[in-house]
Amino acid sequence: MNKKSGRGRRTGSPDTRDLIRQAARKRFLSDGYQAVTMRSVAADAGVDVALVSYYFGSKQGLFGATMSFAANPAEVFQAQLAGDLATLGSRALRSLLTVWDDPETGAPLLAVATTATVDQDLKRLVREGVGQEIVARLAERLEGPNGSQRAAAFTAQMAGIIFTRYVLRLEPIASMSIDDVVDILAPALQLALDGR
Amino acid sequence: MNKKSGRGRRTGSPDTRDLIRQAARKRFLSDGYQAVTMRSVAADAGVDVALVSYYFGSKQGLFGATMSFAANPAEVFQAQLAGDLATLGSRALRSLLTVWDDPETGAPLLAVATTATVDQDLKRLVREGVGQEIVARLAERLEGPNGSQRAAAFTAQMAGIIFTRYVLRLEPIASMSIDDVVDILAPALQLALDGR
Repeated sequence: MNKKSGRGRRTGSPDTRDLIRQAARKRFLSDGYQAVTMRSVAADAGVDVALVSYYFGSKQGLFGATMSFAANPAEVFQAQLAGDLATLGSRALRSLLTVWDDPETGAPLLAVATTATVDQDLKRLVREGVGQEIVARLAERLEGPNGSQRAAAFTAQMAGIIFTRYVLRLEPIASMSIDDVVDILAPALQLALDGR
Repeated sequence: MNKKSGRGRRTGSPDTRDLIRQAARKRFLSDGYQAVTMRSVAADAGVDVALVSYYFGSKQGLFGATMSFAANPAEVFQAQLAGDLATLGSRALRSLLTVWDDPETGAPLLAVATTATVDQDLKRLVREGVGQEIVARLAERLEGPNGSQRAAAFTAQMAGIIFTRYVLRLEPIASMSIDDVVDILAPALQLALDGR
């Protein structure tokens, strides 16, 4: 940012992309999900905000990249949320299981979920990210009373599946097929979404 | 255990109780929940097995004491399990929330839940303990097909409530009253128990 130091505004290069990622990671961990803007990350990295958009598209994309997510849970969920609410329980659960079961997409998510329980900065970041990208977006779409509470109930159930199947590896849920988990748990998820 | 060392079989005293607890903690962490017996802990502590029973009652009680649980989840759940299956969802959820909301009983549980995600020995211990004391006991009581899978689904949902309300402190579930959490989530828990 200081011309004399030679660190003026940078133009695109693989190094620049990585520089932005590193600046974003620091910002997310120090400020939390909510406070970070594309603009503040651009300023930290000494690049134009257009370059941040060019590489990462959105704050969601930037966050996913800083966490090395091969599949971004916020984007995966948003795609499901666009479909029919009456089948969201089973569709969202199946897509979650597919992403977490695959080592390539699942491993970085598991690393974050595990570390977030003991690292306070990361925990806050996950709390705010899940709160905004999952709970709040879902609550907006749900009809009827208590949308926010029903969205939280849905999220709690999804978190429980992640925790028991992938983190704790509790049997029999850890070894059940995706179809079996969906059969057994999707009705409960859908009930939380619909309310009684 | 060696008479010459002066560490022969001990009789009861507060020190003896603590000695047994320490021996049990080591055993549980090295061997897992399943393999530990009252007898093996007695041998490690150099005391008669009757003394282990006298202080701790059962393996459940011994485990709870080694983890410094002021309320033992296995015992709390077993009390609920003795009641009507048709209302188990709301009763078990309410008792879980009551125990975890109270700092005295909740704090030691939260410490174990948090540490278990990153400590492999403790994770195995929690996995086996929950598997035997919650999933297996519940599966025994459930009627109809897929009892074990339905018990796992119930346990996953309970774990999700613990994870979001107490570990992650995700809103709004972290701040909801016990009554509201029960209203919103007990029907889904009961559905998992009943099957569709």
